[in-house]
Amino acid sequence: MAQKYTYFFGLASDGKNLTEGKADMKALLGGKGANLAEMANLGLPVPPGFTVTTDACNYYYQNRQTYPDGVKEQVLAELAKIEASLGAKFGSAEKPLLVSVRSGARASMPGMMDTILNLGLNDQTVKGLAAQSGNPRFAWDCYRRLVQMYADVVLNVHVSQFESLLDELKEKKNVKRDSELRAEDLEQLVESYKRRILEETGRRFPQDPLEQLWGAIGAVFGSWMSPRAIHYRKMENIPEDWGTAVNIQAMVFGNMGEDSATGVAFTRDPATGERRLFGEFLLNAQGEDVVAGIRTPQLLALEQKKRGGPGSELPTLEETMPEVFRELVAHQLLLEKHYRDMQDIEFTIQQKRLFMLQTRNGKRTAQAAVRIAVEMVGENLISKDQAILRVDPYSLDQLLHPRLDPAKKGKPIAKGLPASPGAVSGKIVLSSSEAEKQKAKGERVILVRHETSPEDIHGMDASVGILTALGGMTSHAAVVARGMGKSCVAGCADIHIDYKNKRFIIEREGLVVAEVKEYDVITIDANSGEVFLGEIPTISSTLDKDFATLMEWADEHRRLRVRANADTPHDARVARQFGAEGIGLCRTEHMFFEPDRIEAVRMMILADTQEDRARALESILPMQRMDFVQLFREMKGLPVCIRLLDPPLHEFLPNSESDLQGLAAKLKTSPERILNKARSLHEVNPMLGHRGCRLGISFPEIYEMQARAIAEAVVEVHRLTGEVADAEIMIPLVFDQKELSFLRDRIEKLVTEVLRTGGLGTPLKIGTMIEIPRAALTADRIAQTADFFSFGTNDLTQMGLGLSRDDSGRFLPEYLDNGLMKYDPFASIDQDGIGQLVQIGVERGKKTKPNLKCGVCGEHGGDPRSIEFFHRAGLDYISCSPFRVPAARLAAAQSALRKA
Amino acid sequence: MAQKYTYFFGLASDGKNLTEGKADMKALLGGKGANLAEMANLGLPVPPGFTVTTDACNYYYQNRQTYPDGVKEQVLAELAKIEASLGAKFGSAEKPLLVSVRSGARASMPGMMDTILNLGLNDQTVKGLAAQSGNPRFAWDCYRRLVQMYADVVLNVHVSQFESLLDELKEKKNVKRDSELRAEDLEQLVESYKRRILEETGRRFPQDPLEQLWGAIGAVFGSWMSPRAIHYRKMENIPEDWGTAVNIQAMVFGNMGEDSATGVAFTRDPATGERRLFGEFLLNAQGEDVVAGIRTPQLLALEQKKRGGPGSELPTLEETMPEVFRELVAHQLLLEKHYRDMQDIEFTIQQKRLFMLQTRNGKRTAQAAVRIAVEMVGENLISKDQAILRVDPYSLDQLLHPRLDPAKKGKPIAKGLPASPGAVSGKIVLSSSEAEKQKAKGERVILVRHETSPEDIHGMDASVGILTALGGMTSHAAVVARGMGKSCVAGCADIHIDYKNKRFIIEREGLVVAEVKEYDVITIDANSGEVFLGEIPTISSTLDKDFATLMEWADEHRRLRVRANADTPHDARVARQFGAEGIGLCRTEHMFFEPDRIEAVRMMILADTQEDRARALESILPMQRMDFVQLFREMKGLPVCIRLLDPPLHEFLPNSESDLQGLAAKLKTSPERILNKARSLHEVNPMLGHRGCRLGISFPEIYEMQARAIAEAVVEVHRLTGEVADAEIMIPLVFDQKELSFLRDRIEKLVTEVLRTGGLGTPLKIGTMIEIPRAALTADRIAQTADFFSFGTNDLTQMGLGLSRDDSGRFLPEYLDNGLMKYDPFASIDQDGIGQLVQIGVERGKKTKPNLKCGVCGEHGGDPRSIEFFHRAGLDYISCSPFRVPAARLAAAQSALRKA
Repeated sequence: MAQKYTYFFGLASDGKNLTEGKADMKALLGGKGANLAEMANLGLPVPPGFTVTTDACNYYYQNRQTYPDGVKEQVLAELAKIEASLGAKFGSAEKPLLVSVRSGARASMPGMMDTILNLGLNDQTVKGLAAQSGNPRFAWDCYRRLVQMYADVVLNVHVSQFESLLDELKEKKNVKRDSELRAEDLEQLVESYKRRILEETGRRFPQDPLEQLWGAIGAVFGSWMSPRAIHYRKMENIPEDWGTAVNIQAMVFGNMGEDSATGVAFTRDPATGERRLFGEFLLNAQGEDVVAGIRTPQLLALEQKKRGGPGSELPTLEETMPEVFRELVAHQLLLEKHYRDMQDIEFTIQQKRLFMLQTRNGKRTAQAAVRIAVEMVGENLISKDQAILRVDPYSLDQLLHPRLDPAKKGKPIAKGLPASPGAVSGKIVLSSSEAEKQKAKGERVILVRHETSPEDIHGMDASVGILTALGGMTSHAAVVARGMGKSCVAGCADIHIDYKNKRFIIEREGLVVAEVKEYDVITIDANSGEVFLGEIPTISSTLDKDFATLMEWADEHRRLRVRANADTPHDARVARQFGAEGIGLCRTEHMFFEPDRIEAVRMMILADTQEDRARALESILPMQRMDFVQLFREMKGLPVCIRLLDPPLHEFLPNSESDLQGLAAKLKTSPERILNKARSLHEVNPMLGHRGCRLGISFPEIYEMQARAIAEAVVEVHRLTGEVADAEIMIPLVFDQKELSFLRDRIEKLVTEVLRTGGLGTPLKIGTMIEIPRAALTADRIAQTADFFSFGTNDLTQMGLGLSRDDSGRFLPEYLDNGLMKYDPFASIDQDGIGQLVQIGVERGKKTKPNLKCGVCGEHGGDPRSIEFFHRAGLDYISCSPFRVPAARLAAAQSALRKA
Repeated sequence: MAQKYTYFFGLASDGKNLTEGKADMKALLGGKGANLAEMANLGLPVPPGFTVTTDACNYYYQNRQTYPDGVKEQVLAELAKIEASLGAKFGSAEKPLLVSVRSGARASMPGMMDTILNLGLNDQTVKGLAAQSGNPRFAWDCYRRLVQMYADVVLNVHVSQFESLLDELKEKKNVKRDSELRAEDLEQLVESYKRRILEETGRRFPQDPLEQLWGAIGAVFGSWMSPRAIHYRKMENIPEDWGTAVNIQAMVFGNMGEDSATGVAFTRDPATGERRLFGEFLLNAQGEDVVAGIRTPQLLALEQKKRGGPGSELPTLEETMPEVFRELVAHQLLLEKHYRDMQDIEFTIQQKRLFMLQTRNGKRTAQAAVRIAVEMVGENLISKDQAILRVDPYSLDQLLHPRLDPAKKGKPIAKGLPASPGAVSGKIVLSSSEAEKQKAKGERVILVRHETSPEDIHGMDASVGILTALGGMTSHAAVVARGMGKSCVAGCADIHIDYKNKRFIIEREGLVVAEVKEYDVITIDANSGEVFLGEIPTISSTLDKDFATLMEWADEHRRLRVRANADTPHDARVARQFGAEGIGLCRTEHMFFEPDRIEAVRMMILADTQEDRARALESILPMQRMDFVQLFREMKGLPVCIRLLDPPLHEFLPNSESDLQGLAAKLKTSPERILNKARSLHEVNPMLGHRGCRLGISFPEIYEMQARAIAEAVVEVHRLTGEVADAEIMIPLVFDQKELSFLRDRIEKLVTEVLRTGGLGTPLKIGTMIEIPRAALTADRIAQTADFFSFGTNDLTQMGLGLSRDDSGRFLPEYLDNGLMKYDPFASIDQDGIGQLVQIGVERGKKTKPNLKCGVCGEHGGDPRSIEFFHRAGLDYISCSPFRVPAARLAAAQSALRKA
């Protein structure tokens, strides 16, 4: 006996359920087919039909595009069942059966053929449909649509060919709208369509309904190998041998008159998550009319109407067809209870009879997702574990940051990277000093720069948002903005900044399309990366009780600890409010940029002798100590991992002419000398230059000052509060155990002495960043000298991929567009490449020291996809910007649940 | 019975050989002890003595610095043997035995205690020595020297203490030279020395000879753990538990009168390798006097005298002591034959009696090493394999490049990195255009720059040498200079270039110590990295028959193929002359900088549309094709691996204001537009930027033009000569298989079509560089799409270590000095880190494609130590600068022999 390639769904004419499939047969029937079967099994009114399986598709491709034995007979048998169920006949001129053909793969997939409707119509059956419906115009319009869709999808004749014929006819008949054409006109149009098909293809539009059917099935299978579908599968790692199924289903018509309709319904409010029926419908319309937006749709429920808004002036379904409405309410309740998730439903009403055409899990906002998940636990629909897995951690950004009012946003003038979420409007300024001046005047400003540098910290702090022309997802602007919780669009290559004339312009094909001058107002949507002229209203979201509940559940499940990257007591407080369990990265260099300190730092850099350097450091020491005292007090004994000075020294020297003059005057030296120093410190590739522990080795006194400040702060906090701060000293940019050992020896001696003198016995932990590929490769030896590892996956990505975060904005978007990369590797860790280095580092480190604490402090620490990887790689904690802590907690919990 | 800790060497008084050790017991007796025993076994006149073993040293350190049981008794027994042999007695006032104590580890090791002479003298025995020698002044001088050496080495009283006492005495006695002091004066001096010791240490200089002996042995053992020795062992990976031996030997005196002497002899000429006795001696002197250079030494043989030079005016040993001379000649012949290598011998003549004090393999120049190795094969002393292993491949640079005359070089004014060997003098110029101008006038110039860029190629070509202030061993200047075979000192941080005033200065502690103006003459010694003022004569070496013979032997043994990095027909010719078997790296960008092309290249970069770009490329195509035609013809069917465009585009834009103006005029555009373009192309970290295959992906037409030029050149060469060039197309900077696949698809189609049209069927090989860490980690997948791999270990080092070759000059020297690194990782591959990436890359690549050809084209391809690693890692070929090809061939042969 031949293999079974078709599965029926729907009822026999006697009401007996003939359905053969069910919801869990998605691999064989595709998503759509499985859900249609499931609805039929639930007793819902699904027009009868059947699914040709994915096995048939696979056979088709494995056998030079031929169909397997038996499938033709099986299709005929299924058709006969539909005919019997409805008392109609495929190809009958009297009571013609019409069907739709739709693709349906296991996963929803763009690039696949969507739908051919009205299949079965031909020159004979169209008359039967006219007679049966009593509406010849309706029948000929259905036929016209079939011919056009079929020609487009099966015969490769472009739609535009038919549109021009339609236009000609309308001109000839002197009418403006399609609806003004009469049945006779449409009949004539069908003729001209068929002629055009013959001219273009040498083939006739098939009159045989079965030929039509097989043509449509072949087109669905063919679309599985369309370039767009192949590209999408490659991007999403969908195996080619999943194949697609084909659904053939009896037509029902929402456009058979004023007692017919088509509509969509959500079982809960997809915007807020509130538990109420939500949806709209159009009378006398087909699915595509709803999308086309030619008429304002009507609302479903009276309760919807009471809330006002578009459509509330029209009668509801509850009012116009109360019985149908009640039926729909019952169905949707059943579906949600059955699927245990919010459902997105499509239905058609044909002459007051309700048909269910599709159900699937509905898309929703983050706020709705959280509310629905938590409430469904209360309703005993799902477990807490399921609730945790229901919310996409990526969407949580929406909850923490304002977003643009979608109704009010126009066309963007430029697009960059969504580097730090949120949406803000403000006057543009092109320098940090101007930002500070305007802030002082009470203005809201957006700082626009080629790129930012540590010198811009205060300017960024004074701005409501940041827009940069260069730089990627981990550029300085992006990282600092995320840390501050400010909106930032980075790497916006469209804008050309002209500092001299205080403006930026946008060019397209050599023409200036926009010019934005200083103090002009723009809006940046850092959730999408878009830039708009003028001010656009935003919607802000707030964290609610449901959110807190979900986070509590998440915390019960995760193994990964979540810390935050925070440099100031303020950041630390925010981080703790978001649930951080420590600081994973405190960048001490940010402290060096404080206006009252930068001078001493510069004196240190300009020092010619070790004594001068020591004197400058001496004056920084008490300030650093105070920083740490405040930080430790804020964190109340939670771990605080402090990275010793990392950036190259030239970053601390002034950039502008006036700053240079000022500094020279203050230091009683010549601007030339400072300039010479800056020049001598200039680096071709600063990322790979004299920074991190290399500075510590060249100038051990810098790290010694910092270590002393940390140790003295621990003593001070203990004196003040009795608490012993859990300070961890982290040495950056190590690539060999000898470097770490060289520095550790010096620091440890000093710290132990300070603590001992202060009456404290426990030593501080001293560890290292693993951020150079070689450090990961030699982690076994480095672990001998380290108390902990913190993977700096930003730099590891830059070096491991040979990709500068500041420069890759020029070509990375192309890589993503061309499918050469799936994700921006600075946003989501490159698991295949950089991931290997992390795994090697963890494995070798823990082999040497089984209880070596391993964490991540790169930007990937806040990326849910990366967090799942870190969980699998066996890390102990992740650290991210304070605003990403909630998403990280959720992602960590999901990772633990998925692995279990 | 106690373990044996002492080994005697020498004869009994009856002439019976009592020696217990031999040459292959170096682990136990150290190098010096084993060779003394071996000489004694050969019947040579070695003063009797014994060696305390390295086991005793290890026991000493494993047991809190105590001596093992039995060793004291054994030492006494050995002393008794010496006494018996010589008829003298340790501590005797009549016939005192005096001994020397010397350290001798398994490997020669700086930082160890060297020697204490005259041990056994005290207030009594000095009188015996005076009587015995009939020379009280000699006896007291020996005593004085012992007290001073002993105090310095054993009692830690610094030599300067005694020098000041000596000076006081000379002043008091009103004499100028030590030799004017009489015996009484020296006796008085010894007294004052002893007093000073008591004052400084509270201890008396020991009068007991045995106490002196144990003090000296303890000092030798102690010096094994001196900081310098520990540091050296760490650097050279010498295990601590090797320990050191101690040699105690009867004293003989070359300073007992005019019938006594001390000298050194080489069995062959260490400069030329010629087979003849070569050496010098001083009458009435001790070893240290020869080093001090107070008198001109006399030559050994008449034959030496005939050649002239220093000392040739004095009588030879052959003339003054013909019998001793004949004995020495016989001994040296025996020793060379015995050790089968050129020997470096120390001897002393005491009252016309010859004593042999040391023999070891002699140091020699590269030229001598080659000649000696080849001639010794002819003399049946060694095998060809041994000859290959005898020559240090690192020394071959000496053979190919001139070097400074050591007699005539003064004090350097600065020191940088020896980036490309040779030594040259010339007038300094500070710009490439000036270099070209001066060259045109017939001047020899040295180009001095902060660093060079591809724009400087012609200026470098016009110069005899290059000096840069920045950059390391693989900086642009270094790489290009090596390729050109020109001398280059790079990264000379001492010089401060002042382009404006056309000079450079050298500062020390804030003071200008030298100023060198344009056209001043300097000499750079790029073998050492030193820079000198003025012109210093050089010695040039030539390749001779012996060298060719050795190379032939080497080629029979090596498995690694050796190719050269060459960009021009000229380079290719040089490479083939040096024995290159193909081109491993042809950098096409160098072709782009030809003056007649750079304009078209710039037009391409400035193109706004794809059409403009295509037009510019169109005009470059015929020139590129001609490059390849010439290269292929030069290489006559040997493989030529061509790397498609690699550097970022901004490197091709003009740097100087005048070039900018000129370009703007030529292109009929504004300088501002060019400047804007340059600015928009500027990169923060160009090493990690938009270059290599990333350019190829952004602008596929560039790579397509290059691929077309290559394929058309293959067709053209075939038409002209009938030969099919073995062209390999190499795509740089790939980190993922998808990139390679994207580009390969385009290139392969085009190339195949061109070849087919030209009547050629065989496709060209298309492969990739492995130069990004991720490429090595994902080599299994990349190999699916590559016909070959070429490891770009320069960039792999930069990225894998996070180390910019252009910037690391600022701290890498410190790393080397501090022992944080053993070798400059750009000169010799970091086997522990970057080596892992190479191994992973080869293993994974060959796992996917077992016959995947794997080579190296980074600068490490010319480094012998790295070559040995590449041999072990299973690479198929190495590629290096033409001038390094001979060393590479030799190193490859040695690697194969060592592994076998």
